[in-house]
Amino acid sequence: MQRFINNPDEVVEDTVKGFVKAHADLVRLASNPRVIAARHAPVDGKVGVITGGGSGHEPAFIGYTGRNMLDAVAVGELFSSPTAKSFLDAAREANGGKGVVCLYGNYAGDNMNVKMAIKLAAKEDITIATVVANDDVCSAGPDEREKRRGVAGEIFMWKCAGALAAEGASLEAVQAVAQRAIDNCRSIGVGLGPCTLPAVGHPNFLIEPGTMEVGIGHHGEPGVRVEPLKPAAEIARDMAKIVLDDHDLAAGTEVAVLVSGLGATPANELYILNDTIEQEITGRGLTIHKTYIGNYFTSLEMVGATLTVMALDAELKRLLDVDVDCPARL
Amino acid sequence: MQRFINNPDEVVEDTVKGFVKAHADLVRLASNPRVIAARHAPVDGKVGVITGGGSGHEPAFIGYTGRNMLDAVAVGELFSSPTAKSFLDAAREANGGKGVVCLYGNYAGDNMNVKMAIKLAAKEDITIATVVANDDVCSAGPDEREKRRGVAGEIFMWKCAGALAAEGASLEAVQAVAQRAIDNCRSIGVGLGPCTLPAVGHPNFLIEPGTMEVGIGHHGEPGVRVEPLKPAAEIARDMAKIVLDDHDLAAGTEVAVLVSGLGATPANELYILNDTIEQEITGRGLTIHKTYIGNYFTSLEMVGATLTVMALDAELKRLLDVDVDCPARL
Repeated sequence: MQRFINNPDEVVEDTVKGFVKAHADLVRLASNPRVIAARHAPVDGKVGVITGGGSGHEPAFIGYTGRNMLDAVAVGELFSSPTAKSFLDAAREANGGKGVVCLYGNYAGDNMNVKMAIKLAAKEDITIATVVANDDVCSAGPDEREKRRGVAGEIFMWKCAGALAAEGASLEAVQAVAQRAIDNCRSIGVGLGPCTLPAVGHPNFLIEPGTMEVGIGHHGEPGVRVEPLKPAAEIARDMAKIVLDDHDLAAGTEVAVLVSGLGATPANELYILNDTIEQEITGRGLTIHKTYIGNYFTSLEMVGATLTVMALDAELKRLLDVDVDCPARL
Repeated sequence: MQRFINNPDEVVEDTVKGFVKAHADLVRLASNPRVIAARHAPVDGKVGVITGGGSGHEPAFIGYTGRNMLDAVAVGELFSSPTAKSFLDAAREANGGKGVVCLYGNYAGDNMNVKMAIKLAAKEDITIATVVANDDVCSAGPDEREKRRGVAGEIFMWKCAGALAAEGASLEAVQAVAQRAIDNCRSIGVGLGPCTLPAVGHPNFLIEPGTMEVGIGHHGEPGVRVEPLKPAAEIARDMAKIVLDDHDLAAGTEVAVLVSGLGATPANELYILNDTIEQEITGRGLTIHKTYIGNYFTSLEMVGATLTVMALDAELKRLLDVDVDCPARL
């Protein structure tokens, strides 16, 4: 493993320490060392906005803590759900007396621990409303959307909800806009190379050189097919087609586009993908309002990329355009 | 090669096209397709701020085009200098009648082509003043600083100069602040894995698994030593020591810190490095004003990281804090 790590069992510990040091102007470590809170949180009378998830996806989830974004984040071990206690503590850090929305991805461990945190929080009169992200098209069919995983579309969900909460909206309104934001997102991932959990020491799945996995999840969950590696333009066309066929948007719809590297794919290759992605999207009569390119939601040192397309309405567009101040690029 | 590319000879072409599409609100392609200009450029009566360099370092150089940053960038082929004509055209795009500063890195090809561009520009009454970045500590000894390469310190140089130029400063003043900014920077790179130019098809240098190259350049130029791969904390200590020993700053000095991945190193590992880097810097009595962590200046899919430390004075600190709006994160 050609990696910058210390004790493989302390990767999350060391990551969080270095993160808080780098961004102490924006974030702080809570008394629970697996919870990152925004410096400003909690804000009295504001709905708290939290999430949580496994580590190894940096800058997700912790990098989206900040002004007009997330108030607190529960931090799990690598590719593992945070504990119920960490979700609870994130809610406590974010609670300004108006309730908390927990906007997280659809994974078994997260579902279980968030449910438990809701019960524990209720005993302290903290209401936690939830939205479960399920934007990953290839993880289940269109008639089973509730089974789909949450991936990079979560960032758009957090951004819209974070902005609305900062305006003083009610818990119901923030939950509703987050639900609409993620309902309007479709994502797909393509993997060209696996990643290795440092404590395991070998890849947790395989991608043979010369092949690629279409529809892969953020932890190597298999997608719809393995096929020979193709030129970027063909890959990008396939990614756009899978996302847009599932989305079925009317011509003239405005969209936001996010192309994220999975950790070991450099920016220039994401731009190469975007050249074709833009063609495919505009070729369907859609209008691109804004494009985000970079490492937004990664999987350790996996080689690959994801595409997320969010359909915008007037409110989502306005909220997406609100300036944020958080460690990750937005 | 597990890469998102089309024709290996058209990597730069495709990258630039996808880049301009993604960031059309901020940048535009000049009539020379190897020049990126800011949407706002040229600004009448403002000193133009330009740079140029080989491709494969994205988001450098093109991603730093924007408001309060670079007005135009000359784009070279992968790891190759832009042509003199491209540097000239970048100057033309940036020229608001008050002269242009070209702030670039110390490489033979760039030196030659910038010199030629200066002569060509003079015929059109465009004055080009230059600052040559040489922040890479391991590329030559302290008594031969003029031989050192320019690396990620260039970003701080651009940011300070771009902010001062936007305030309406003179050509001499912008040049002087850029020179002071880069004089105040020291950088070092550590490579854990090589990169491959797509048209070549095999790595252009070797790093044996289990080893690392200390002091490596952005194109695999050898550093001071190859040694067994060590825990991140030891690597970070070595990096900080090399940079700070060369810098020799008085206790109490404020610094800005930039930890950049080289392309295939994920963010969490940069944070792990930062945990120790911060200790080493503050342990010498220095104060960290701001830390930047991410992929700021890469080398295709090289595995590795760089550390840059810039000593701040009151003016540099003020200029560094000026908000910018460009495709790269700042």
